Amino acid sequence: MKPDFKLHILGKSSAIPTKTSFPSAQLLRFHNHSFLIDCGEGCQIQLRRNQLGFSEIRHIFISHVHGDHYFGLFGLLSSMRLLGRNQILHIHAHPKLESIIKYVFSQGGSMPEFPIVFHKLNFNAKELILSNKLLDIYSFPMKHKIPVCGFLFQEKQTARNIIEKEIDAYDMSYQEIRRIKQGADLVRNGKTIEKNDKLTLPGHALRSYAYCSDTAYYPEMVKHIKNVQCLYHEATFGNHLKENAKETFHSTACEAAMIAREANAKKLLLGHFSTRYHTPDEMVSEAREIFPETYAANENDVVVFQ
Amino acid sequence: MKPDFKLHILGKSSAIPTKTSFPSAQLLRFHNHSFLIDCGEGCQIQLRRNQLGFSEIRHIFISHVHGDHYFGLFGLLSSMRLLGRNQILHIHAHPKLESIIKYVFSQGGSMPEFPIVFHKLNFNAKELILSNKLLDIYSFPMKHKIPVCGFLFQEKQTARNIIEKEIDAYDMSYQEIRRIKQGADLVRNGKTIEKNDKLTLPGHALRSYAYCSDTAYYPEMVKHIKNVQCLYHEATFGNHLKENAKETFHSTACEAAMIAREANAKKLLLGHFSTRYHTPDEMVSEAREIFPETYAANENDVVVFQ
Repeated sequence: MKPDFKLHILGKSSAIPTKTSFPSAQLLRFHNHSFLIDCGEGCQIQLRRNQLGFSEIRHIFISHVHGDHYFGLFGLLSSMRLLGRNQILHIHAHPKLESIIKYVFSQGGSMPEFPIVFHKLNFNAKELILSNKLLDIYSFPMKHKIPVCGFLFQEKQTARNIIEKEIDAYDMSYQEIRRIKQGADLVRNGKTIEKNDKLTLPGHALRSYAYCSDTAYYPEMVKHIKNVQCLYHEATFGNHLKENAKETFHSTACEAAMIAREANAKKLLLGHFSTRYHTPDEMVSEAREIFPETYAANENDVVVFQ
Repeated sequence: MKPDFKLHILGKSSAIPTKTSFPSAQLLRFHNHSFLIDCGEGCQIQLRRNQLGFSEIRHIFISHVHGDHYFGLFGLLSSMRLLGRNQILHIHAHPKLESIIKYVFSQGGSMPEFPIVFHKLNFNAKELILSNKLLDIYSFPMKHKIPVCGFLFQEKQTARNIIEKEIDAYDMSYQEIRRIKQGADLVRNGKTIEKNDKLTLPGHALRSYAYCSDTAYYPEMVKHIKNVQCLYHEATFGNHLKENAKETFHSTACEAAMIAREANAKKLLLGHFSTRYHTPDEMVSEAREIFPETYAANENDVVVFQ
């Protein structure tokens, strides 16, 4: 059975939230893990509304230390403390975030008693920052006013599906089945009885997700996210404001679409829209001219990866 | 005409917000002023939802530096900056808040360019912290784990209403009318022609509001809020958890009601309920046994002071 791979959009607004939108925050559910990506103000309220537990979150990834991407951390950590958390929490971020959190809680609040491990992101090169049996998570540099990282969640090669009738045909042992699922041929007494591809079918297609916000148009990142299944890319501005995008180190919707096309992504999600836009329609239609499989991210959307 | 005197409840939850509630924040509209009282996480979103402008806010009062009363400040100040504010902002709080804000913005964000003046609250005695022609605002100490102040908004004596037919009867000049409205007798050539109370009727009743959160049961505060029209008092717990209230320096609903009764308040608003309660019914009914004019505060409630 495929493990769950679901993305929950908790906030997608740019720096100034509106009455219906929250600043950047997303939760990626994979198997029994919850990975929090950015944590704008109100993130904990959005987690509650989406019935997503705090305790399953063991890793938080903060792209950069602009407030709309981390001001929700103070409240979330406070609530985790009050809820009696004792489990370790890992925060992957710029080192400044560690000093900010320690300062705020030392001066005005109660420092969480549960262990928090801060991991410094590498803002110069792609790096594998977390790996388990089923998933690899990478950070990679993007381009903004301050150091910023994107994140790539890449499912690992899964076990092959053994063809059931071959189990009986060869009267396979449990150990043989396990080895064959992992890709081995059927070997007995040092002799290859049957090649693996005659005994198995491939496992399910590998799923992947890339989060790219905030960033200027930065084609150098394409090599890090080649063939990604779903790309979330900021699109703060429409094309008529491409000069604003350049000045502020943000992207237009067209630029996001060019990145998706170059990366051969399957699907593009846009977000981080400037509050001057009351709907994302302009950005979506501009991007679709370049990359048809473009959609707007909305608060409380759930993207299920197949 | 009476100036507006309206209280907007933006958040009333205790430390852990729920999917429907925000932590402590209120906005008092008086005449053309907006006074923000506490600023829990999500306050700026609640301001937007209630269509309350950021630019009218010139004074922010923070009762104490526990996160659920100030974590919304970072986002609000950032948004004020992005909206191009250049007007001065006054923040009345514990001095630690100044260092927290300066540290956070120096490390991870952009320090607002508009001037912010920090005013240190007095946690030892009642103090007049702001006064204009129509309103006095006081802080006064309460009792919590850390220093905390309550706030009292007290309308000043207003002009008397002149009886219209007396203007004609005495053929009053503009200057005479002005003096009489301010309480003077009608005096001509050094001689009292008529006493003020024959010429005027009293102005409207003076309105007042007291905000008391967070605090343990603290009868010593009663003298500061005598005869207040509306008292907001925290009621974190019901009576069955009075020991929890004592330990955590919070109040039960009954204790809030006793303060309201002793202060001879007209109306009591309860808030800061523990998240263990799904409705405030238990707290309200317990408090009404002692103080019948008790109501629960709810997000987005507007209390219009008559």
